[in-house]
Amino acid sequence: MTKNILVTNDDGVLAPGLLALAQEMRKLGTVTILAPDRNWSGGGHVKTLDRALRVREFHLDDGTQAFGGDGAPSDCVALATLGYFKEKFDLVVSGINVGANLGHDVTYSGTVTAAMEAVIAGLPGVAVSLEIPDGHVGPIDFGPSALAAGMAVRNVLQHGLPADTLLNVNVPFLKQDEIQGFRMTRQGLRVYHSRLDERVDPRGRPYYWIGGEAPTGVPESGTDVGALSDGFVSVTPLQLDLTAYRAVSEINTWNWHDPILSEVSLLRPSSVVAAEKQ
Amino acid sequence: MTKNILVTNDDGVLAPGLLALAQEMRKLGTVTILAPDRNWSGGGHVKTLDRALRVREFHLDDGTQAFGGDGAPSDCVALATLGYFKEKFDLVVSGINVGANLGHDVTYSGTVTAAMEAVIAGLPGVAVSLEIPDGHVGPIDFGPSALAAGMAVRNVLQHGLPADTLLNVNVPFLKQDEIQGFRMTRQGLRVYHSRLDERVDPRGRPYYWIGGEAPTGVPESGTDVGALSDGFVSVTPLQLDLTAYRAVSEINTWNWHDPILSEVSLLRPSSVVAAEKQ
Repeated sequence: MTKNILVTNDDGVLAPGLLALAQEMRKLGTVTILAPDRNWSGGGHVKTLDRALRVREFHLDDGTQAFGGDGAPSDCVALATLGYFKEKFDLVVSGINVGANLGHDVTYSGTVTAAMEAVIAGLPGVAVSLEIPDGHVGPIDFGPSALAAGMAVRNVLQHGLPADTLLNVNVPFLKQDEIQGFRMTRQGLRVYHSRLDERVDPRGRPYYWIGGEAPTGVPESGTDVGALSDGFVSVTPLQLDLTAYRAVSEINTWNWHDPILSEVSLLRPSSVVAAEKQ
Repeated sequence: MTKNILVTNDDGVLAPGLLALAQEMRKLGTVTILAPDRNWSGGGHVKTLDRALRVREFHLDDGTQAFGGDGAPSDCVALATLGYFKEKFDLVVSGINVGANLGHDVTYSGTVTAAMEAVIAGLPGVAVSLEIPDGHVGPIDFGPSALAAGMAVRNVLQHGLPADTLLNVNVPFLKQDEIQGFRMTRQGLRVYHSRLDERVDPRGRPYYWIGGEAPTGVPESGTDVGALSDGFVSVTPLQLDLTAYRAVSEINTWNWHDPILSEVSLLRPSSVVAAEKQ
């Protein structure tokens, strides 16, 4: 039976990375596109509840019909899965993002949070991002990353994903025959070099840019950052359970019984119950 | 030595929950306030890089000086820790949010993502939210939740937090003497009842609300949802490593070697290296 695949992204419905992804996905099933009508990078996991959302029709460079919503990538996934389309989807894939989503990036990334929203909707989610070298100018070849996305999505369509899990796929900026293959990885470490730039506007009022160099990564073995640095596509399963299980026992030894603040003594001394790991 | 505490929130710098938190924090150290200048609920983990940010001075109801930034909670934490203030902070606390942040809420919550941004900046982060019963109207007593925040923050100032970890504190909507105490918990399950409402504007064009009933929770033992339902304050340590370690070995058994798509065969067959758990 043919599979229904929802394609979305973070860079906006007209971004060439989305078209490359949609064309690859068309080999695997019926493709529907609903993505932000503008660039939404760095926008996080958003649920727009305080205003209504609009959807407009677009046509991509190859004539493909697509829809653009005026919300975040996660809003687009919510719209699509809550009934904007008649179709029931089998999988949501988001990308191809211009720029890798590694380490702590995944908590900011619209590409990744679109896949999170899919998981919350009970669907498998795959996020695909292409590393872009610092200072790169000129056209981007999405060919190798589209093929990597095809491989990941074909696998997920065949095997499913464990509950509460999405795949975060990152592709190195290499020619197709230079890519070394795939590595299953864990989330690595980014080093952010953010800096605050204070400037003064023509009316003498200060304003602030979050600036600084692009983040770098710690190319540790076994991580997404390490895989890309070795020329591999990284495939990191991510979960939406953020519990730091290893921290529970330590925090449980702290004093939660005998309040130091006199006012808190009004909180009844009581049993502190340790979290049981699921 | 006196501690420098940064207070921020999600509901906006003038929200009464922030004032209650700031007043409680003043018992524990020197308090500086930088929070969004407007309500930012459901806005996710945002890093505003594509526009400049403004900061204005506010005065809270008790005359306290505060600063309001025109970005997300996480932007406010970035501004504050990257040098908007001369102070070096010892801890970031965010809240008191109107409404619990339980289960998957933590991936959307501005209250929680402010604490995430603190962790990324290398500081301990604590998020504090107060459960609000569905349909509640009228004033909210932030007293018990402020005391709970004080207990959590005092503990963190004394013990520190494990690396890459923040605390997510949720307080039940109970009178002070009805609160049963504290429970260390894991992230539980929310059940979202989102529904798409299609409407038509006066010019005949459709628009869409993400609507539906408020999310409910599965009050399982050991979880944040369960603790609140039993009348306890839940304290959940959260981490920024989202790797689904338990899924790695399964995904590693999939076929990443022999491409089914002919085009993918151009990707060299190669060693698939399993992620090593840190």
